[in-house]
Amino acid sequence: MTTIPGGVTAAKGFQATGVAAAIKPNSTKKDCALIVSDRLATAAGTFTRNLFKAPPVRWSESVCTRGVARAIFANSGNANACTGDRGYADAQATAKMVAEGIGARSEEICVLSTGVIGLPLPMDRIANGVRECLASLRADGSADAAAAIMTTDTVPKETAVELALSGGTVRLGAIAKGAGMIAPNMATMFCLLTTDAAIEPEPLAKILRESVEVSFNQICVDNDMSTSDSVICLANGASGTPVLQPGTDDFGRFAAALRDVCIHMAQSLVRDGEGATKFVEIAVNGASSDNDAKIIARAIATSQLCKTAFFGQDPNWGRFACAAGYSGASFIPEKLCMWIDDIQVMRNGMPAEYKEEDAAACMRKPEFRIRVEVGNGPGKTVFWTSDLSHNYVEINADYRT
Amino acid sequence: MTTIPGGVTAAKGFQATGVAAAIKPNSTKKDCALIVSDRLATAAGTFTRNLFKAPPVRWSESVCTRGVARAIFANSGNANACTGDRGYADAQATAKMVAEGIGARSEEICVLSTGVIGLPLPMDRIANGVRECLASLRADGSADAAAAIMTTDTVPKETAVELALSGGTVRLGAIAKGAGMIAPNMATMFCLLTTDAAIEPEPLAKILRESVEVSFNQICVDNDMSTSDSVICLANGASGTPVLQPGTDDFGRFAAALRDVCIHMAQSLVRDGEGATKFVEIAVNGASSDNDAKIIARAIATSQLCKTAFFGQDPNWGRFACAAGYSGASFIPEKLCMWIDDIQVMRNGMPAEYKEEDAAACMRKPEFRIRVEVGNGPGKTVFWTSDLSHNYVEINADYRT
Repeated sequence: MTTIPGGVTAAKGFQATGVAAAIKPNSTKKDCALIVSDRLATAAGTFTRNLFKAPPVRWSESVCTRGVARAIFANSGNANACTGDRGYADAQATAKMVAEGIGARSEEICVLSTGVIGLPLPMDRIANGVRECLASLRADGSADAAAAIMTTDTVPKETAVELALSGGTVRLGAIAKGAGMIAPNMATMFCLLTTDAAIEPEPLAKILRESVEVSFNQICVDNDMSTSDSVICLANGASGTPVLQPGTDDFGRFAAALRDVCIHMAQSLVRDGEGATKFVEIAVNGASSDNDAKIIARAIATSQLCKTAFFGQDPNWGRFACAAGYSGASFIPEKLCMWIDDIQVMRNGMPAEYKEEDAAACMRKPEFRIRVEVGNGPGKTVFWTSDLSHNYVEINADYRT
Repeated sequence: MTTIPGGVTAAKGFQATGVAAAIKPNSTKKDCALIVSDRLATAAGTFTRNLFKAPPVRWSESVCTRGVARAIFANSGNANACTGDRGYADAQATAKMVAEGIGARSEEICVLSTGVIGLPLPMDRIANGVRECLASLRADGSADAAAAIMTTDTVPKETAVELALSGGTVRLGAIAKGAGMIAPNMATMFCLLTTDAAIEPEPLAKILRESVEVSFNQICVDNDMSTSDSVICLANGASGTPVLQPGTDDFGRFAAALRDVCIHMAQSLVRDGEGATKFVEIAVNGASSDNDAKIIARAIATSQLCKTAFFGQDPNWGRFACAAGYSGASFIPEKLCMWIDDIQVMRNGMPAEYKEEDAAACMRKPEFRIRVEVGNGPGKTVFWTSDLSHNYVEINADYRT
């Protein structure tokens, strides 16, 4: 597997673009993105479990359930969430405009919206956006698409890899947005993937679900699940390689590449988390089960007190242990050991012997790792999180007003 | 029920004090508190469910399980948590010193510690603290005790009420600490109650549990459950009134007073929450069950995005709805309605018609209410929370270093 340029247009048969259509109020920034496959592609998606699932999410979910799509249109600046029947009709109308422009059926167009909740989509501007996107589609348009889906993101997120399979080379690329896992009024996190591998809907849906489980479901910035979180993958087979068959080596290698790309993009969201100054990996081993390991990792990763300690560069491991203790996972506190990078700070439920300054030095780095050994069983997990900084409060207290 | 002065010494037969014993490093602030009943009292307690339950909490829990006690000794500055067998022995030794001083058995002395996790208790200073406390016990010492248990609290918390029962008047008082619900390294929240009512251990334990359920379990500042959260009530019967019998009017009125005192103290913790500039009541009605109502209220109350919106005085109800949507409670989003004070901002899952300025005006007040009508059933709850401010980050990034 080699990293290559090109993002979502690295795979053959895909074009993309991003344009400014004034969906973001008082802004000249790009806010409409379009990704089009030149042929019908296998489509799979995973979506937010928030009950206030936005209308475009419900629309795109039904597209992915049917398993085939030609294009993904996404706007930033307005989430089209909490907008009722009108919101759903607007998502449908957007799909229709795109479908007519590329000669496809509405049911083959995924539509996503990200931005403020509770405002109707300005359909005249969306129509302009769709028109300009159709006019500007290019085989090297991924960067523009990546820019157009940004909200509080400070950098666009894009990646692509190339993978030699027995029947030839395939490419897999992605763009993503989300200044951290979640900021619900921003309705927030997208990752859009394209590949020219050939694969059937069901196996694609299965490996995408598995990839999301170990990537986007293992990160947090503020632990708020948005109304629009969506990960969609289109596989158009334009590489000419044979259809990937579950159980084969090729299939396993493609699934691994998909997982790696998802983890890479998930980590890039955390690195650009709102106000983030730290990227922290939480590794938990030896829990009763993988699920218990996740529960412990998530408790540490989402604790306001742990996150402010990360920001303060304070090796205050008592907070990390405390979060593990209230997480709900079952373990014997007297067995728990903990490291900050290579410095053991806790041994068998009590302070280890270490120099405070050594532990503090680890936390002064922009990236460090907290490792918890529970001593209870085979369960393990890895989770990624950011810190809670003044800027997080600044960004989120002032976002809308 | 009338509010009276005197805190934990308002009830007959109780003395209290607070002294400075340098448990708080480099400080001349009070850090040891003692509350003593002149006779054996019925004792009941509720304690943190954190697996890293601090040794003194385990000690005090066993005292309360036996149902009788003479005194409560509490220190701030050091939580005696994650300190293993030595920590338990230190708690026990502290109880013994107090017991010898007042002519009681060690098993009748509750001991609590709050402060930094993972440091052994400085037993020589604790011994000095106990000695000075014993020498300074007074019938009007409640305010000193309230001061001595403070950590990042900015004001001491104290209350007392008087209650006329059929057999005479009883008094019920409390002191509490905790700059918000929880800050695990501070091992954090205490509420110590005294009453001169006469009541058996089992009924006292039951109504204390019920009171905690609707008070201290319904608040949050940062949603981190500490290793030392403790609520303890001593009832010494010194009023001379008959033993309260479950099922009687008197019993009901005493239980209601206990509940009201707990709610009052719980609210005072939120009002003094770390960095708090807002006191927000979250009322949820019409959920499928009381438990679902709690789940929704807690999701809104603990969401970083909701809490930064409170701080930003931003009526960004999309965040509140979003938190309800991911809370895990089951409801029909199209039925949900929401108010900020008297301004309806959401009607049947969509924006209501209201003036943004009216909703913003509500949130500029230091205290306001968010009311959610789920439209699903009879479940209801009330929850209290604070905002997430720059000062919260400041306090918690810089606390220890």
